[in-house]
Amino acid sequence: MKLYDWKPAPNPRRVRIYLAEKGIDVPRQDVGAGWGLSPDFLARSTHKLAPMLELDDGTLLGEAMAICRYFEAQQPQPCLMGDNPKSMAVIEMWERKCDFEGVQAVAEVFRNSVPALADRALAGFDVPVPQIPALVERGKLRVARFYKQLDEQLAQQHFIAGEKFSVADITALCAIDFAKRIKLAIPEDHTHLLRWYAEVSARPSASA
Amino acid sequence: MKLYDWKPAPNPRRVRIYLAEKGIDVPRQDVGAGWGLSPDFLARSTHKLAPMLELDDGTLLGEAMAICRYFEAQQPQPCLMGDNPKSMAVIEMWERKCDFEGVQAVAEVFRNSVPALADRALAGFDVPVPQIPALVERGKLRVARFYKQLDEQLAQQHFIAGEKFSVADITALCAIDFAKRIKLAIPEDHTHLLRWYAEVSARPSASA
Repeated sequence: MKLYDWKPAPNPRRVRIYLAEKGIDVPRQDVGAGWGLSPDFLARSTHKLAPMLELDDGTLLGEAMAICRYFEAQQPQPCLMGDNPKSMAVIEMWERKCDFEGVQAVAEVFRNSVPALADRALAGFDVPVPQIPALVERGKLRVARFYKQLDEQLAQQHFIAGEKFSVADITALCAIDFAKRIKLAIPEDHTHLLRWYAEVSARPSASA
Repeated sequence: MKLYDWKPAPNPRRVRIYLAEKGIDVPRQDVGAGWGLSPDFLARSTHKLAPMLELDDGTLLGEAMAICRYFEAQQPQPCLMGDNPKSMAVIEMWERKCDFEGVQAVAEVFRNSVPALADRALAGFDVPVPQIPALVERGKLRVARFYKQLDEQLAQQHFIAGEKFSVADITALCAIDFAKRIKLAIPEDHTHLLRWYAEVSARPSASA
């Protein structure tokens, strides 16, 4: 088994933090090459995205949460994806929201504004995709709403999907740290989100 | 328990097809109102999106696949989300790809081109969000790539995530039927995808 990793990107970090929380050690290979992925990796991966988990039978598993699901089914404890129908559903709801409204919204701003990605505005494409400047403003609107929704949620409970740490917290943390690269910090009046961020960032897994 | 539904939209349909495949009957309320959702529903839902499942304890569950996860954990058979670590992960990988590269790509074209949505280019926002015309072409590029990837995948196996029907097939079907509204049919040379589409569309659940 091998995990194809890419240190600076938010999606591989979701898996690294998850594995650190579970205490699971998987051999890793960094497949980054400058602002993209190495030609060797791209040639053997249909989806051309990291992270990717290669199983011993050669199966290639993409998508951060699908990789986490594989390990969660094998080693349920400590539980990060829920242990009953309701907690499983609530965690999945919030994890998907943090992915779409968080990670992907930040990526929209990032990929449509960074000069080095001028013709690579969509990840995983092997044809040129020009940036759309109007998406930078729209993405910022999405990120602001994401922060506000998390702050409201965290006013009511300790972690994003309830009283226990879960993959929803992992994805939110990766989105927020990714947003540093577009200089969109958590607003100072979002006190609940800031309380949560300080606590989650202090977990040993956050450095994974 | 009640399912807040919206007949013409692709995401509520993912849940309806899932429930039909499982043989689960849930009371439903259609919360559509023209091109959007009814003011009553919007007032009581933080996320302002359909589908939404209200549990008997008042919990509101959003996100189509989170709702399906709730039922899958309660009633595992017939299995639509995998029954071992590998099948669970492969199905989740493909379902998320069909959501992001399929449903959301079609939605990008749809919401940025339909005149009735001129200032509502993002779902779930309660402030005006103007359309970005350049996203229409980019979205079409994404949909074309989605079709091509599915065709390549279906050349190798019967259903999208393996030899058994799963939620990945449901999300792909909803994306492709949604694409009829932007007049992007499956290309005629995508014979594997067309074979799959004919079969999946003929299942009784497809009319849900």
